[in-house]
Amino acid sequence: MTETPQIDMSDLGIASRAVLKPITQIAAAAGIPEDAVESYGRFKAKVDPALVPTRNVGLGKVVLVSGMSPTPAGEGKSTMVVGLGDALAATGRKTIIALREPSVGPSFGMKGGATGGGYSQVLPMDEINLHFNGDFHAITSANNLLMALIDNHLHQGNALGIDPQRITFKRVIDMNDRALRHVVIGLGSPSDGVTRETGFEITVASEVMAVFCLATGLEDLRARLGRMTIGYTYDKKPVTVDDIGATGSMTLLLKDAIKPNLVQTIGGTPAFIHGGPFANIAHGCNSAIATNTARALADLVVTEAGFGTDLGAEKFMDIKARYADCPPSAVVVVATIRALKMNGGVQLADLHNEDVAAVQAGLANLAKHASNILKFGIQPVIGINRFATDTDAELAAVADWAKSQGIECAVADVWGQGGEGAGELAAAVLRAIEVPSNFAPLYELDMPVEEKILTVAREMYGAAGVEYSAGAKRTLEQIHDNGWDNLPVCIAKTQYSFSDDPKALGAAQGFQLQVRELIPKTGAGFIVAITGVITTMPGLPKVPAAMHMDVDAQGNAVGLS
Amino acid sequence: MTETPQIDMSDLGIASRAVLKPITQIAAAAGIPEDAVESYGRFKAKVDPALVPTRNVGLGKVVLVSGMSPTPAGEGKSTMVVGLGDALAATGRKTIIALREPSVGPSFGMKGGATGGGYSQVLPMDEINLHFNGDFHAITSANNLLMALIDNHLHQGNALGIDPQRITFKRVIDMNDRALRHVVIGLGSPSDGVTRETGFEITVASEVMAVFCLATGLEDLRARLGRMTIGYTYDKKPVTVDDIGATGSMTLLLKDAIKPNLVQTIGGTPAFIHGGPFANIAHGCNSAIATNTARALADLVVTEAGFGTDLGAEKFMDIKARYADCPPSAVVVVATIRALKMNGGVQLADLHNEDVAAVQAGLANLAKHASNILKFGIQPVIGINRFATDTDAELAAVADWAKSQGIECAVADVWGQGGEGAGELAAAVLRAIEVPSNFAPLYELDMPVEEKILTVAREMYGAAGVEYSAGAKRTLEQIHDNGWDNLPVCIAKTQYSFSDDPKALGAAQGFQLQVRELIPKTGAGFIVAITGVITTMPGLPKVPAAMHMDVDAQGNAVGLS
Repeated sequence: MTETPQIDMSDLGIASRAVLKPITQIAAAAGIPEDAVESYGRFKAKVDPALVPTRNVGLGKVVLVSGMSPTPAGEGKSTMVVGLGDALAATGRKTIIALREPSVGPSFGMKGGATGGGYSQVLPMDEINLHFNGDFHAITSANNLLMALIDNHLHQGNALGIDPQRITFKRVIDMNDRALRHVVIGLGSPSDGVTRETGFEITVASEVMAVFCLATGLEDLRARLGRMTIGYTYDKKPVTVDDIGATGSMTLLLKDAIKPNLVQTIGGTPAFIHGGPFANIAHGCNSAIATNTARALADLVVTEAGFGTDLGAEKFMDIKARYADCPPSAVVVVATIRALKMNGGVQLADLHNEDVAAVQAGLANLAKHASNILKFGIQPVIGINRFATDTDAELAAVADWAKSQGIECAVADVWGQGGEGAGELAAAVLRAIEVPSNFAPLYELDMPVEEKILTVAREMYGAAGVEYSAGAKRTLEQIHDNGWDNLPVCIAKTQYSFSDDPKALGAAQGFQLQVRELIPKTGAGFIVAITGVITTMPGLPKVPAAMHMDVDAQGNAVGLS
Repeated sequence: MTETPQIDMSDLGIASRAVLKPITQIAAAAGIPEDAVESYGRFKAKVDPALVPTRNVGLGKVVLVSGMSPTPAGEGKSTMVVGLGDALAATGRKTIIALREPSVGPSFGMKGGATGGGYSQVLPMDEINLHFNGDFHAITSANNLLMALIDNHLHQGNALGIDPQRITFKRVIDMNDRALRHVVIGLGSPSDGVTRETGFEITVASEVMAVFCLATGLEDLRARLGRMTIGYTYDKKPVTVDDIGATGSMTLLLKDAIKPNLVQTIGGTPAFIHGGPFANIAHGCNSAIATNTARALADLVVTEAGFGTDLGAEKFMDIKARYADCPPSAVVVVATIRALKMNGGVQLADLHNEDVAAVQAGLANLAKHASNILKFGIQPVIGINRFATDTDAELAAVADWAKSQGIECAVADVWGQGGEGAGELAAAVLRAIEVPSNFAPLYELDMPVEEKILTVAREMYGAAGVEYSAGAKRTLEQIHDNGWDNLPVCIAKTQYSFSDDPKALGAAQGFQLQVRELIPKTGAGFIVAITGVITTMPGLPKVPAAMHMDVDAQGNAVGLS
């Protein structure tokens, strides 16, 4: 008897068997001039956008991948981006993928990694999931240099008259470290700084990250960094990074990080992986520079926005597309039968059982997301990410509904088949981008801030109205006094529900959205409205994923997934 | 009239005019196999030691550059390493330089950078001074992942029974941030971790850094990380990284960082720049892996130990050479006329005035450093780093003294002339390495810890004896109980004096060395003895160097020096 060799079908196992092309070859095929490419090892590079000319035929079209409300079952949105990108490339259209960089912190907690899955992954997955080309480290350093300069300013006499109790900026670390959420610093002797209460956030929550991802170039980066508000004086006047004198040195720390990182998919499609802000307290998409560099090179740029259409896609349209002039030509709304069943009332443990009625009940959630996209003047395309437990009857229920609504819908098996599993979806996307778009943001910038928030709450979430805490009301006045009314809004809300109650699945409506806090992010250029409880510093679980990670004798990563 | 164009003679100005060779060309000339080289941009690479075979002629000889007691006047030791390396390469000996990586934090405070100076620099200086290839970021991440796992262990029920008040490991950040020296973490609600007092150290002070620099390979790295003591249980039993379960994930975070970084000097000599532990609470030299990879490739490896012979060189001999089997064949003791005058009693402001008597008085300091090297069975070579204000009479005073002692002595102008300014010094070094060495460490490992400390204090510092605080005495018992007696010692002492009083210049002797605290570093493999006040987290000055840093319109660094 012979034993069947065990094939490792984990994401890391599949990734480690892939044969990668040298990154210089990927770059050349993408039309990137040789002098714009700085290799980081054999399979990663940074690309200098200043040395990438725009093609004669003009900028490529943006295909935005969004999704229905995420569930603990996992929708595989990044996996769909990669598979769809490979499928579009296979049609002969010059295609580049643009994705966010994974945050290291959560990888050691629950997630284990975030670079797609199965045969739809970006590679080298271990390096992308760990330090990658150092961008998040550079952002962490820039953020924390600013903080060291602020606390040094207090210590050296506080010439600006900053109120230590009104410093809103925090230090960051790319680690899930709950014990750093609330800290007191500056203890010890008088030479050990000024004592004050503060906290740490995870790096992806830093406004520096949001600035990094919205900047259209080095000059815009410097200007946005300089405009960030770090706190207020005893007279309640805002203090900026320019006031502290930190703008130049922060820009210096980011000068190389701001260049997009080029890698490849298992299928060989070029991918820019660059930047990664939160999709609640920030706008949740990869850097504007990566998206626009990709558009200068390719016919099609497949990119992702975090969470569902209510969060990531809305912010893509109202914040990123507005600042970086990159409106999508089509939006794919990723759905899974499992997520539909959960939104239809099925428990996580029972998702493997066929339940067509639950799928149909869950369609209310998907329908709301599709209608959200239509409100921006863009046709949605439903992309069903197929799982092994999906039944034909369940899939047919979604297809029938989509047909009845006149919405394109295609099933894709990107995990198991890579780009080959997404042929129908790619065809649907190619039809959708030919439909003339009437893209417009949801609101105008000159509307009052309350009006903007109400518009998003009504149109995207289905809220009846918005209620403000006493503190949020005070901040509204402050926003007005400081002349920040013209900024777009960035609403931080649970991703699990259209409402601010994470347990209200399906398509909650008629609720009052509770705005607990408003945070002006004057460098990123938006007003964050916090609803519900949003943590900007995750914790680790009882048994963190880190416990299973290691390096094998050949120096290869073990335990990433 | 024509205006004479202003030539920028700052270090950054000189560096930016240098024409660099592609790093692949530098690697090939150094005999590094192509598959061992991973380029990071055009002018930096990581080299995989596992793919570098040792030459047929065996390992190269180590030339260690140490110095007299440093002064605020600046001795330019790294600059001497670079100039000497270039000069040795010019003699036709295959030469590789091995240096520490600069710490980012201090660059934003006083220093501005640490990559040599003038025409003796390693390049690209801006990148080496900023994030370089991310090693310090990786070390910071590994250290802070450990801390997050420790505090999570407390939060999740503390199965190991760790006493929160006896956790000795701290978080680190590569920033001069005095306000983080003493902090209270875990405030807030019960879900925000366990409240305890702790602090942050600068990354170079992390035991992870020391482990990184003493590890001889990936396996040794893992073993050392696992052996680190993070604190004690309520029963006062040591708790290790292995106990926490963090060893694998920490190793994973360091798997690429542990490969030495290859760059070049202005003169085109290959240089490994890798690792950078403190020279007081740690051993103060570049990684063992870099030194030994260089020895596998070259005839001569020119490397540096921090501060004077009493600190860096002693630790090189007694710690690094012992663990990594890389004893030096010659030791250059760098001196400057300015430092001799300061040690002879002249004030910083008056150093530009000729003062032969002060030089002669200051020779007591240099003589003690030279005799320290002799105690290891190695001939010292005095290398005078020439400054513009040095007079012939002052230089002659040193040469006469050296001649009277039978010690090689040469003057070098490495700042102004690069390797061409160090021809005589190179010749002296080539003579010195031919003298048969009787190298032996200062003490045997099986001596009691107090005996080892006394030996270093007497032989290297000129102390009459050693006194221990009550706390240090208790730790001595603990060291004995835990079976850590066989570790070498690493004495943290001010670099400005042979004694523990930074104001006692010249050659203080007959003093009692005060040991305030003992810290067992069971992963690095040494017992740190703290004398005087050693800060492991520097602060920023009134006007930090960061205030003058920026990026110009072409994307180049401004304000590094």
